[in-house]
This record gives sequence, C-alpha cells and structure tokens, in this order.
Amino acid sequence: MRLRLTPREDSFYGMFADSANNLVTAARLLVELISEGADREAVAEKMRACEHAGDECTHAIMRRLNETFITPFDREDIYNLASMLDDVMDEMEEAADLVVLYKIETFPKDIIKMVDVLERAAELTAEAMPRLRSMKELNEYWIEINRLENQGDQVYRKLLAHLFSGEYDALTVMKLKEVIDRLEEAADAFEHVANTVETIAVKES
Amino acid sequence: MRLRLTPREDSFYGMFADSANNLVTAARLLVELISEGADREAVAEKMRACEHAGDECTHAIMRRLNETFITPFDREDIYNLASMLDDVMDEMEEAADLVVLYKIETFPKDIIKMVDVLERAAELTAEAMPRLRSMKELNEYWIEINRLENQGDQVYRKLLAHLFSGEYDALTVMKLKEVIDRLEEAADAFEHVANTVETIAVKES
Amino acid sequence: MRLRLTPREDSFYGMFADSANNLVTAARLLVELISEGADREAVAEKMRACEHAGDECTHAIMRRLNETFITPFDREDIYNLASMLDDVMDEMEEAADLVVLYKIETFPKDIIKMVDVLERAAELTAEAMPRLRSMKELNEYWIEINRLENQGDQVYRKLLAHLFSGEYDALTVMKLKEVIDRLEEAADAFEHVANTVETIAVKES
Repeated sequence: MRLRLTPREDSFYGMFADSANNLVTAARLLVELISEGADREAVAEKMRACEHAGDECTHAIMRRLNETFITPFDREDIYNLASMLDDVMDEMEEAADLVVLYKIETFPKDIIKMVDVLERAAELTAEAMPRLRSMKELNEYWIEINRLENQGDQVYRKLLAHLFSGEYDALTVMKLKEVIDRLEEAADAFEHVANTVETIAVKES
Repeated sequence: MRLRLTPREDSFYGMFADSANNLVTAARLLVELISEGADREAVAEKMRACEHAGDECTHAIMRRLNETFITPFDREDIYNLASMLDDVMDEMEEAADLVVLYKIETFPKDIIKMVDVLERAAELTAEAMPRLRSMKELNEYWIEINRLENQGDQVYRKLLAHLFSGEYDALTVMKLKEVIDRLEEAADAFEHVANTVETIAVKES
Repeated sequence: MRLRLTPREDSFYGMFADSANNLVTAARLLVELISEGADREAVAEKMRACEHAGDECTHAIMRRLNETFITPFDREDIYNLASMLDDVMDEMEEAADLVVLYKIETFPKDIIKMVDVLERAAELTAEAMPRLRSMKELNEYWIEINRLENQGDQVYRKLLAHLFSGEYDALTVMKLKEVIDRLEEAADAFEHVANTVETIAVKES
C-alpha cells in the first residue's frame, strides 16, 4: 500500500473532472436546444445554471491553487487547464444565449453534426481528466480530440457555405453565423484543453 | 507629518487620474456624437485628439515605469492598469470612427442608455484613481462598475434584439452592430480596469 | 578577425529569413488569387502548401530555441518574432481560404491596393531579417512598414465605405468584408513583426 503524504493534491483531479462533466451537461443541453419544438427559453435557463456551476468549479480550482503549496503539476498549467475548460463553457453558453436573444426557431439541418462533435469532445475530456493522475492513456484522448476538431471544422465550413448559398436572407445568415461561430470556437477550445493536457503530460513524462 | 522619501512614486496616481479623466471627455464626446443634428465629422475629429492625449498618458506612465526602481505597487499591475485604461479609449474612439466611416445618421433611441453607462463608468473611474493612494473607498467603485456593466449588458442585448427585429435592413444592421459592439466592449474594458484595481487593492491590504 | 565561438546561434537569422521569404510567396499568391480569371481553388491549394512550409519554419525555430543555450537575443523575443511571422501567414491563408469557401468571383477594384501593401511589406520584412545579424539599417525598415500600415489602413477604410455604399447586396458585403478584414489583419501583423524587431534592436543597441 502506498501512503499518501500529500492528500490535498489529489483533489485537483476531481475538480477538473467536475468541470469537464459540467461540459457534458452543457453539450447535451445544446442538443436539446436545437431540437424541433424545444422550449428554448427553458433550455437556455438550464444552460445559464450550468455555466454558473462551471464558474463555481473554476473558482474552486483557483482558490485551491492559491492555498496549495505543492501542486501535482505546474501551477501555471493548472491555471491554464481550469481557464480553458471555462472557455469551452462560455462559448457553449453564449451560443444558447444568442439562440434565445435572436429568437432563432429553425436551424440548418447539419448543425446537429457540430453539436454532436461537441458532445463527443466533452465526453472524451471528462473521461480523460481522472487519467491525469496516472498520466496513462492520454494519447488516445489527444488524437481523438484532434480528429474531432478537424471533423468539426469540416462541418463548420460546409455550414458556412450553406448559409451563404442564397437559401437564407441576410439577417438570418447574420444570426445563424454568430451561433455557429460560437460552436466552432467551443470545438477549438476543446482542442486547447487537450493541448494543455499534452503540455502537462510531456513535462511529467 | 509623514516625510515623503520617494516622491517620484506619487506621480503614478496623477497619471492614472489624467488617463481616466480623458475617458470622461471621450464618453461625453460619444453623447455628442449620437445626438440629433451633430456635426459627426467634427466630433470624431475631437475624439481622435482625445485618443492621442490618452496615448500620451499611457506612454508617460510606461516611460515612468521604466525609469522608476521602486513603484507604489507591482510593476505588472501598473502596466496592466495603464493598458486597460488605454483599451477603453481605443474602443470608444473606434466607435466614433465607424459612425463617420459608415455615415450613420440615425441611431436606435436606446443607444443613449449605453453611452450613459459609459459616461457614468468613466466618471467613477476618474474619481477612483486618486483613491489608489490611500486604497480607501475602492469597494464602492468596483461594486458600482460591476452594476453598470450588468446594466450595459442588458441594454446591449435589448439593442441587438431590436436591431434584428426586422425594422432595419441588413446593411444598416451590420453598420450599427459594429458600433454597438464597440460600446459594449468599452463597458467590458471599464470592468477590466476595475478588476485590475481590485487585484492591486487585495495585494496591498 | 573575430572568432565565432557559438556558431549555432547564427542559424536563427537564416530561419527568420526563410519564414519571411515564405510570406513573399504568400503575398504573391494573393495577387494571383484576386486577378481576373484565376483558378482560385488551385491558388488556394498553393497557399495551403505555403502555410504548411511556414509552419515548418516556425517549428524549426522553436525546436532550435529549445535546444540552444545561448541565443543571439532574448529567448522571448525569438519566440515572439517567430510567432508574429506565423500570424501574418495565418491571416493571408485564411483570406485565400474564405475566397474559395464563399465562391467569391469578383472583387472591388481597390482590393489590389491592399494586396500590394502586403506584398511590399513581405519583401521589406524578408530583406530586413538578415540585417538582424548586424542590427544595421533596420530603421528604414520600421519606418517603411509603419508607412505601409497607414497606407493599408487608408485603403481598408475606403474599401469598407465602398462595400457599404449600396453597390453590393448584404450577403456579398458580409463575404467580402471577412476577406478584407483578414488582409487588414495581415497588414497589422506585419507591423507587429516590425515592432518586435524594434524591441530587439533597442535592447541590443
């Protein structure tokens, strides 16, 4: 049996997992939001609650970071990882917010493909966070996130081409483009999370 | 009587106050700019002069920072505070510039509410800067800036919803949105200034 | 005769020159891209190859930086210079990419003036990089880049005013504005490169 001399350290893994699990909830709310006949105001309200929960996680990590002398990896990396997870949430929450603000009722069919990418990326991230403890099997996670980000980029580009194809009037294009841009930035932000994890793993290896 | 052994230090407070007073001038120019029948080219010209004066303030602070060995608070915080004040000015100047560039003649009525928020935030900031010396009564300033930022956000969202309501043609929406986005970023930038002041005060307390 | 005790250092100059020469190629591809009757897909494909070559340069510089103990100037400045050169490329590549994605076939006549500014800025940058070794005649380079950036800004503003003049429909304005914004950011990015070179020269003088 291995004695834990620094039990405090461990909680960072749990807090990162909380933060990432929260992103899974947020991504599922996006699926709900774009589904036909959804009560979008209600979903956006849940998303706001989810974003507040995410803020709590981030603040808890930052507080712990300030109180902890010995951290399981570089302070700066802990700070970055928490911030990057927070950024993903912000982009998803903003997308939901814009949908309600602009009273968007119908979406291009393929938008579900972008949201699917986000849901899968959130799940992978949530599964990877506890593995920071052992630093094992993180490789598959980066590779898959990168693959997803590329896939998301392809979907994004097709959506843009479709938006500007002439099927939509200009005001609708503007509104939908803002929402889709947020989703694309959320996908990018998941990649930044993965890059930060990679940085940590490289240092520890 | 307390002897001042490091008289050089004090001037930072004065320079920050200059920079913030300049923002009050800029915010009042915005009020002028959006008023009916304004000579917008002339106002934008004054705004440019105001922005140059702001640049002078920022450079003076940076120069002083480079020449001063002992600073009244962390060098990085001085640098950040000067940069953040500069950012507010840049957003306001860009808003004025776009109004002239796009030849915008009429504005949604509620835009005055956003500019009022900026004027009030500028005044509060200018009043707070000299209090950095004593670090007293800064609490009210943060709280009020945060309240203003939230209020500005509500106004911004209503303006966006109004812009996209169908009353305006798409090109007009694009032009007005760019201007309103700048105003919203100016309100955000005032909050960043307040956050930097909070950081300084927390360290000094 | 001065003995070179640290021959490794020198290669940074060569790598920066490679990176900047690559920007000359990219700027010339932009000229091709906007010319009448161009095979835009083919040009964008070449631009992608050019961007990959740029990435190689950047990575080579970063790798060298990690392996080198004594660098010819501050590590951070080397890092910044490499990143800034990379940023220019990214903006140019994105502009080309958007042209193809949005199937833009005709451009406002004056767009050539913006691309000319970029081509000239790229050439000046490529000529300046080898002069980092002697730190001589860098003054003319900054002055000229600043002049070009101002010129580019004037062209950009005229293009925007023209775009919103009513000649184009809203969707076309949106597409063209995105491309022109990228070109303007490329011009800005050239100025950031020049500012970094100035920082280095000031420290070394």
